Amino acid sequence: MTKERDKLSMSPEEVRTLCRNGSLTGPTSGFAKGRVQANMMIVPREHAFDFLLFCQRNPKPCPLVEVLEPGQFAPRCAEGGDVRTDLPGYRVFENGRLIREVGDIGEYWRDDLVTFLIGCSFSFESALIEGGIPLRHVDAGKNVAMYKTNIPCWSAGQFNGNMVVSMRPVKSGHVARAVEISGRFPQVHGAPVHIGHPGLIGITDLSSPDFGDAIPIFDDELPVFWACGVTPQYVAELSRIPFCISHSPGKMLVTDLTTS
Amino acid sequence: MTKERDKLSMSPEEVRTLCRNGSLTGPTSGFAKGRVQANMMIVPREHAFDFLLFCQRNPKPCPLVEVLEPGQFAPRCAEGGDVRTDLPGYRVFENGRLIREVGDIGEYWRDDLVTFLIGCSFSFESALIEGGIPLRHVDAGKNVAMYKTNIPCWSAGQFNGNMVVSMRPVKSGHVARAVEISGRFPQVHGAPVHIGHPGLIGITDLSSPDFGDAIPIFDDELPVFWACGVTPQYVAELSRIPFCISHSPGKMLVTDLTTS
Repeated sequence: MTKERDKLSMSPEEVRTLCRNGSLTGPTSGFAKGRVQANMMIVPREHAFDFLLFCQRNPKPCPLVEVLEPGQFAPRCAEGGDVRTDLPGYRVFENGRLIREVGDIGEYWRDDLVTFLIGCSFSFESALIEGGIPLRHVDAGKNVAMYKTNIPCWSAGQFNGNMVVSMRPVKSGHVARAVEISGRFPQVHGAPVHIGHPGLIGITDLSSPDFGDAIPIFDDELPVFWACGVTPQYVAELSRIPFCISHSPGKMLVTDLTTS
Repeated sequence: MTKERDKLSMSPEEVRTLCRNGSLTGPTSGFAKGRVQANMMIVPREHAFDFLLFCQRNPKPCPLVEVLEPGQFAPRCAEGGDVRTDLPGYRVFENGRLIREVGDIGEYWRDDLVTFLIGCSFSFESALIEGGIPLRHVDAGKNVAMYKTNIPCWSAGQFNGNMVVSMRPVKSGHVARAVEISGRFPQVHGAPVHIGHPGLIGITDLSSPDFGDAIPIFDDELPVFWACGVTPQYVAELSRIPFCISHSPGKMLVTDLTTS
């Protein structure tokens, strides 16, 4: 319990330092309370316009926190930080295929790489909890359940695919409040994209999520679906561009930005 | 007066057709009431990532309405439209120098050109007027006064420069309401960037605007400054990229989108 409190009260810089020296290799959920955590995608400059356009056209699943210049690795939103070392884990892809999972990407760095930092739902989750809406996956210490849908994204160049959503069970009586609270965070996915009928967005079996952990839904609850920051990575994989790097699931960049 | 009403009640498609067949060569202000009008910048693909990044980093002066794929000229926001012909006038630049002002850009079109449509203040101006805040430049049939400032934009690649602002005199008692009303339009510049002291943002002489017409300010009024969609064009010129095209001042693309 002391340990949990320690995580929560750490500064973003402390979390990034732990990642950099190899002491933190697990998920960043629960660290540095109140700070924005970011998904990361790194693509070569040759593909950066199309990927930026994809994000601009699909702001709900791809809310941009920051885009760095080609070759730059020091983000404005994390003072003294380095995107090559300051996340707990990275995934390296070639032609859409995962080739390695690593703790830092120094050996893969190139001057033409463009880093995209993309908002993640950890920010609105704490607002939901504070608003009296418990989140089962958080209470159970699990990852949120995520699903591929039939909701098309607006394509850009070769980046093309359907939206990935995260699902949280919400008591029927709390659904309206969950919409209102998350709607206040347009920078991190905003209001839900669907409520109640998974089949209508192409999800056939809630007990088999495509990413994350299965989370049970009780009789007095509805499944509520939010646009998910896994979408840009999923679409980048589908595109089979020769090379890209993402953060490992749940292992985010902890930024200096506050969620409020 | 009938003519003015005709302009207001035209459909966006009718306005675009008038442009295409050469019947409308003047400003689009006052046409197709309630429709979003867009500033336009066209840059080669080689510079498109940096320019998109510049817009993404400076959303107040550069609120993106739509970005087209390289070589595409049919925008989603204007059905059946063509950005090469459907504006009343265009400016063609080489190395940051204006080389020609033309009525269509068919002869300049290339497969690598990327079109950016950027929000313009015509949208919130009608909301201000409806909110009981008269606009002197509109009443006088003049262009809004625009000034270069010392407010730096966040640069991206070679796109680098200060913000251009538009100025509207507002009665002191109406300033708060003007902020509230324009703040409801984050897609078109949003709330003012400065109120009251032009010297503090590097404007030395309000009677000599850098673009548009001089507009007098009365004793019971304050000058109110909004981020201006001329900024991206000004910055593109400063960058001296080999080739770019913009709309001619005041001669916008009238889209199908409604301002509400």
